[in-house]
Amino acid sequence: MNVLVLDVGTSSMRGILFSAEGAALASAQCPYRADYMEDDGVEQSPSDWEEAMYGIFRSISAEAMAKHADIDAVSITAQRSSVIPVDRDMIPLHRAIMWQDKRSAKICRQLECENEEIFRRCGSKANTVFSAGKMAWFRKYRPDIYKNTYKFTGVADYLVYLLTGNLCTDYTYGSRTLLMNIYTHKWDADLLKLFEVEEEKLCPLVPPGSISGYLGKDAAERTGCREGIPVITAGGDQQCGTIGQGVVQEGFLSVTAGTGGFLITAVEEIPKNLQPNVICNVSSIKGQYILESSVLTCCSAFDWFCRNFYEECSYEEINRIVEKTPIGSNEVVCLPYFQGRSTPDWNYGATGMFSNITLHTGKADLLRALLEGICYEIQNGIDVMKEYVDVKHILINGGLANSDVFNQMQCDVCDIELIRRGETDATARGALMVALQACGVFTTVQEAFQCISRQDKVSFYHPDRDKKEKYQKCREKMNEIYHNLYM
Amino acid sequence: MNVLVLDVGTSSMRGILFSAEGAALASAQCPYRADYMEDDGVEQSPSDWEEAMYGIFRSISAEAMAKHADIDAVSITAQRSSVIPVDRDMIPLHRAIMWQDKRSAKICRQLECENEEIFRRCGSKANTVFSAGKMAWFRKYRPDIYKNTYKFTGVADYLVYLLTGNLCTDYTYGSRTLLMNIYTHKWDADLLKLFEVEEEKLCPLVPPGSISGYLGKDAAERTGCREGIPVITAGGDQQCGTIGQGVVQEGFLSVTAGTGGFLITAVEEIPKNLQPNVICNVSSIKGQYILESSVLTCCSAFDWFCRNFYEECSYEEINRIVEKTPIGSNEVVCLPYFQGRSTPDWNYGATGMFSNITLHTGKADLLRALLEGICYEIQNGIDVMKEYVDVKHILINGGLANSDVFNQMQCDVCDIELIRRGETDATARGALMVALQACGVFTTVQEAFQCISRQDKVSFYHPDRDKKEKYQKCREKMNEIYHNLYM
Repeated sequence: MNVLVLDVGTSSMRGILFSAEGAALASAQCPYRADYMEDDGVEQSPSDWEEAMYGIFRSISAEAMAKHADIDAVSITAQRSSVIPVDRDMIPLHRAIMWQDKRSAKICRQLECENEEIFRRCGSKANTVFSAGKMAWFRKYRPDIYKNTYKFTGVADYLVYLLTGNLCTDYTYGSRTLLMNIYTHKWDADLLKLFEVEEEKLCPLVPPGSISGYLGKDAAERTGCREGIPVITAGGDQQCGTIGQGVVQEGFLSVTAGTGGFLITAVEEIPKNLQPNVICNVSSIKGQYILESSVLTCCSAFDWFCRNFYEECSYEEINRIVEKTPIGSNEVVCLPYFQGRSTPDWNYGATGMFSNITLHTGKADLLRALLEGICYEIQNGIDVMKEYVDVKHILINGGLANSDVFNQMQCDVCDIELIRRGETDATARGALMVALQACGVFTTVQEAFQCISRQDKVSFYHPDRDKKEKYQKCREKMNEIYHNLYM
Repeated sequence: MNVLVLDVGTSSMRGILFSAEGAALASAQCPYRADYMEDDGVEQSPSDWEEAMYGIFRSISAEAMAKHADIDAVSITAQRSSVIPVDRDMIPLHRAIMWQDKRSAKICRQLECENEEIFRRCGSKANTVFSAGKMAWFRKYRPDIYKNTYKFTGVADYLVYLLTGNLCTDYTYGSRTLLMNIYTHKWDADLLKLFEVEEEKLCPLVPPGSISGYLGKDAAERTGCREGIPVITAGGDQQCGTIGQGVVQEGFLSVTAGTGGFLITAVEEIPKNLQPNVICNVSSIKGQYILESSVLTCCSAFDWFCRNFYEECSYEEINRIVEKTPIGSNEVVCLPYFQGRSTPDWNYGATGMFSNITLHTGKADLLRALLEGICYEIQNGIDVMKEYVDVKHILINGGLANSDVFNQMQCDVCDIELIRRGETDATARGALMVALQACGVFTTVQEAFQCISRQDKVSFYHPDRDKKEKYQKCREKMNEIYHNLYM
């Protein structure tokens, strides 16, 4: 059985045709770009995705045919929280309001006093990144569109509709709206009231890893695939990526140190002691949830520093400079909040800082302090995770994980073995695993992961215990400075 | 009447033969260097100064003779607080312990609890820079030397003795010992007890601007000068420098933004509300005092930044970069405590910091923030001065004052006209003015200043009032961060 996975990202869409064993048989990619507007708006035309999808399908169908490989199912994973208002004929009434769009800031701020209640129900606090504020924005600033909106769909939902004619959204996307109750997996009447969004304007909720429908006749023609093959909603891209990295049971934590950093762990049920210092979302694995914590600037901060202060150095040279600088960066402390702080306290006003500088400080001390600061902040996030789960294994990835120096630093800070998988298609592979379980090839997603990841190249980092204490003290110093400035 | 001024600095000795109108008739300079030792010790051999002095005298005598100019008096100004223990034959028992020597740190720390009382009597708090700790260090760690010490002399005292055979020290040096009562101008029994120094080991106190003695026969031979000409103790180098810059009455404040920064103002009497947020020293002008405040890193911090981050840029290019960056450095705030903070709160543990950094921050923002931070800290010092005097005129000098960009920035921060004198010999000229008053050429030092500075090239900076408020807000932000971190 071969599955075509469609991964609808922010800057491009990718399609990969996988065998049930996880071998990539064909692939295609189509770049696109959202419009970043002056008023904090970020929009994209739904036709971008429609065209990209059919293009990818046709390209992969052709390649599959040449290889005599069938396409037996389609699995879709996508960016979360972007919102498309459509009318009764499913025609978009406006370009998609993207997840990065911040025009709902005022609406979210006005609901801040309700955050405790909002979090208690949906596992997240009011924030521009989630869908509800975007829908409320239409109601408030474009009442004409809001009135004519039959449904607000997500990007995956919209594409699934184009392929199958069925309209639904899954719990993973639901848990990024601020409108779904994470305990009941139903739209929550009180949350709908708070955001003044009518339930009838939302898509019906279905579990992720379920068949959303079957490829329609027109779609079959346009895609070059067989009519009637199942189309599976695999869940949000972060959910699938987490699975692809191996976070398929409690005890595993993935740390993605990309542009920003994401810490995601799996839990079998919603923790009894859940606090708003994390985000709790529904997982793509049946019955599971994910806890999410984030570090807003990782690679972005490192790149900012290199661009400003090491303009002409290669990454290799920069790594050597970091390595030659002692632990603790000669006392320099960096607060890595260059775009504010998210979890655990959601302090948007926090900023980046280099402190403890003397005339003996060198540029390299600042550089290393920045990387150490990122590691400490990740460790702060891990400490929060530990309030809920027993973190036993950490899987690292993202741009900064390409640096052995950074990984070893992170490992020594964490004082735990770190695991790095060589595979780069985590999200698509996760969506494949979910689809194979949905189609009955495997009984569970865990089983799919075991089978598919068997041949993966995995490397390990081992902590140097002697360094732990020194790092720990530096982290305390960083947290103390943060505390003194912001608490 | 011509006066040979000897200015005994830290890195060199300079001699200038001045006419009574302030024209330099001849000059000579001799460099030397203290030994910077591993244990925070800084020492220099008294013979360095003896040799340098005679060399300078001979050179100037010869030049004067060639020009048919007489040398009618000698005026000496010197570094303060360096200590030479001598025996009954006035032979040094040890190299001088220099003002920068920090070996008395432990002794000073132990007396911290007595600081209120110490300050109330001598206008300074216990600190390694002052003489008393250095004498106590001899008692504690070199009791053999302490026992045989007939007198502890300062550098100027020692040279005056060599020239005249008379042993004394003036109030300006006395007020840098921590042992002289600034109200009575006498050695203070309670302070002597605190530091465990016997009064008999100290030189007799005389007013600055007095004739310490007359050139002896041997000295006349060695110097090439006439026997019997008066030798005047003009007072400490900072005192003389302040006079040379024009701080000869209340309302004037000199701001020297050199390696470190010094703010010095004149007061006609010790302020009734004097607090340890400044240092109060005796002035070289009869009856006056000076209030001193300092910024530990000015040029040193700027040079540190340029060396680390603008390696290949000229000062002109750097100034252009600063000028192009907006007021407030795009929100970046720098705490310029790269070697701790001195006045007003003597926080040695304070450190340098760049804060409020985002991914939009550029290197130039940090550079400008550093210069702004120095200006704000100077203004903090001025605000403290204003508790005691009505600051009407500010005279600027020092390395950073070579930059028009910095001066205008400082001017806009201060919101007051700044005056910059082109003359660079402020210290020697101050010592000349004091000597001319001592010899009766002028009735007062103020009169000497009026006459001698008449032809000086003076430039002015005028504040741009529109910028004041913006700078004021930034300074408040800087002070708030400092307060949150250290108070």
